[in-house]
Amino acid sequence: MTDFAATKAQFDLPEGMIYLDGNSLGPLPQAAKARVAQAVADEWGQMLITGWNKAGWMAQPTALGDRIGRLIGAEQGHVVLGDTLSVKVYQALAAAVDLVPDRRVILTDSGNFPSDIYMAEGLIKSLGRGYALRVVAPEDVADAITDDVAVLMLTEVDYRSGRMHDMKALTAKAHAAGVVTVWDLAHSAGALPVDVAGCGADFAVGCTYKYLNGGPGAPAFIYVAPRHIDRCQPALSGWLGHAAPFAFDLDYRPGTGIERMRVGTPPVLQMAALGSALDIWDQVDMQALRAASIALSEQFIAGVEATCPMLVLASPRDAALRGSQVSFRFEQGYAAMQACIARGLVGDFRAPDIMRFGFTPLFIDTDDITRAVNIVADVMQNRLWDDAKYQTRAAVT
Amino acid sequence: MTDFAATKAQFDLPEGMIYLDGNSLGPLPQAAKARVAQAVADEWGQMLITGWNKAGWMAQPTALGDRIGRLIGAEQGHVVLGDTLSVKVYQALAAAVDLVPDRRVILTDSGNFPSDIYMAEGLIKSLGRGYALRVVAPEDVADAITDDVAVLMLTEVDYRSGRMHDMKALTAKAHAAGVVTVWDLAHSAGALPVDVAGCGADFAVGCTYKYLNGGPGAPAFIYVAPRHIDRCQPALSGWLGHAAPFAFDLDYRPGTGIERMRVGTPPVLQMAALGSALDIWDQVDMQALRAASIALSEQFIAGVEATCPMLVLASPRDAALRGSQVSFRFEQGYAAMQACIARGLVGDFRAPDIMRFGFTPLFIDTDDITRAVNIVADVMQNRLWDDAKYQTRAAVT
Repeated sequence: MTDFAATKAQFDLPEGMIYLDGNSLGPLPQAAKARVAQAVADEWGQMLITGWNKAGWMAQPTALGDRIGRLIGAEQGHVVLGDTLSVKVYQALAAAVDLVPDRRVILTDSGNFPSDIYMAEGLIKSLGRGYALRVVAPEDVADAITDDVAVLMLTEVDYRSGRMHDMKALTAKAHAAGVVTVWDLAHSAGALPVDVAGCGADFAVGCTYKYLNGGPGAPAFIYVAPRHIDRCQPALSGWLGHAAPFAFDLDYRPGTGIERMRVGTPPVLQMAALGSALDIWDQVDMQALRAASIALSEQFIAGVEATCPMLVLASPRDAALRGSQVSFRFEQGYAAMQACIARGLVGDFRAPDIMRFGFTPLFIDTDDITRAVNIVADVMQNRLWDDAKYQTRAAVT
Repeated sequence: MTDFAATKAQFDLPEGMIYLDGNSLGPLPQAAKARVAQAVADEWGQMLITGWNKAGWMAQPTALGDRIGRLIGAEQGHVVLGDTLSVKVYQALAAAVDLVPDRRVILTDSGNFPSDIYMAEGLIKSLGRGYALRVVAPEDVADAITDDVAVLMLTEVDYRSGRMHDMKALTAKAHAAGVVTVWDLAHSAGALPVDVAGCGADFAVGCTYKYLNGGPGAPAFIYVAPRHIDRCQPALSGWLGHAAPFAFDLDYRPGTGIERMRVGTPPVLQMAALGSALDIWDQVDMQALRAASIALSEQFIAGVEATCPMLVLASPRDAALRGSQVSFRFEQGYAAMQACIARGLVGDFRAPDIMRFGFTPLFIDTDDITRAVNIVADVMQNRLWDDAKYQTRAAVT
């Protein structure tokens, strides 16, 4: 079992705020303050260049990768950190299409996070040679897995609705059709149990600043199935993915195993913060997390639906089909969310009309949900969104 | 004029250490300790998701980019931060080859940093269609700029020898032959005055953790000449380079100007540290820096040559042809450098036999050089490299 009161006590949360936006940017682990200060003053400041060895900076991308690997069901030694999620999507896709050289279609769905689709477009532009992107509705994905598809690229949990794809079934269907899979776990890692190895996923990528609480701009991760890694010829063949980076050879030779998916110098200060977040994750059982997440989500749905008939559930009602977020549709959703935020309930808004709330048992408990429901009810019942001050949109929403 | 005693006072340097390795990883600006702590506790901790607007995180890549732009002679609004240098090389190269669609050759030299060459190889693999890399000796570059070349990709200052290419002359020769240029400023930015606009450079990239002192894993930067930016269709088309990232459109439309070269979420904690480093750079006149750098380098060369006949100068003797580093060849260079480090003089070693010393007037003065020469003389005259304890190689050298 996991003691979620104990994990909650390890976060710094602003006084009085109910933060249901950990699916966008996770909160600060208290220990990260001292840990980052140490990385700055004692490591960078005192060790300087020797920090790459002495402080273990160079080994962090795989060491932290393995700790994330446990959360997503990866085999030991097959996850590495680095770059941003968009760059990791590009790497995974480029390696995946290479594995199916006689096909030209990348299949995805319209529920995918737009950046994944943009990165695929960029890769296709570089590849030329008839490569094409095929975008279908989420519910049509299974039927669209045909034998002209090279790669199936999906985000497991929809960033707006929380609707979850069946990773195991879709991967099996893909494999039966000779299709390689790339799974984006942005809204899965730290949100629910993931089992990339058990599902037979070929590639998986994700970010660490959402549910994993790694901090703003924390690096992304990539997983490559052991059966593929030795055949991956990295498209982003940076020196730290080289077999011998410090030999400074003029020819690229990919490194051993997942190390070849490294590109450039890793972000040491961001990794220090992420390490503190993973110290908390090391205490968490993912099945217990899932049970707690579902309990919080169900409590929230029931409370909101009982008090706010104007809000229409946009997430699957069946918890088994949902990630760790709940969304409601409301035409004045932007202003309504601003009104909630002004009252200490932080969720977020996704155009055109989605009010999105993330459930993160590491630092949110049932008392928080009770208070959250009361705030939503106040905003909706009293039409607080009508106030003009809530209607001016910020640059980042 | 620049008061270098005042800039030196703004760095934390380990007691008794003479750090001639700022060309590998710059030291800690004292103010970065409080600034990073603020970014962690007050911004991430208290603002959470609103930090993207309230703390200005989203605007940092261009705001910091402009401050670097002054150091490299860029037009205002044409430098943006993000990713690692290898990724920025890839972006620049991919955009550059697009501008010369009827040619297939990327020309570079064997003195380029290997990762630049590796990234070009990776891009060429994705592009197919007859694209090829042509690698010539540094002294043969000018003659190799022929009318079948699409892109000339060079690092201005050689990472081993400090030998400097003539950016203005080579760019002019390239343009006369219809060739687009990509300049890597890894060992130039913060090392010497650079004038990308005056030289007519098409693309430039660089890192911020060396001379710029941005900290381990600090993000890279990219410059695109104003005349090209509107025609650049980014290969790494991430959401933060989109015209409207938060509209979540399914189709990629590049953002305005240099913003389109952004990819994913920027590393907020690293940018905070870099901001403190740039606060010091804002006080520096680049011509004064160059004069001080040459004075320190000449003092070091004269002192070492007068005392250590076994060390052979591997850098150009003419300061005008040299960046801000000095290298000597010595067969037992690795062990000799370890012996120097053990005595408080930190330089670095590059295979097979280069002992490399960086000169950084922001925190190194003539007294430091006097002491550095004495240490090198002690190591060489007393054959201290013979000690077996200096001969075991670390993973990162």
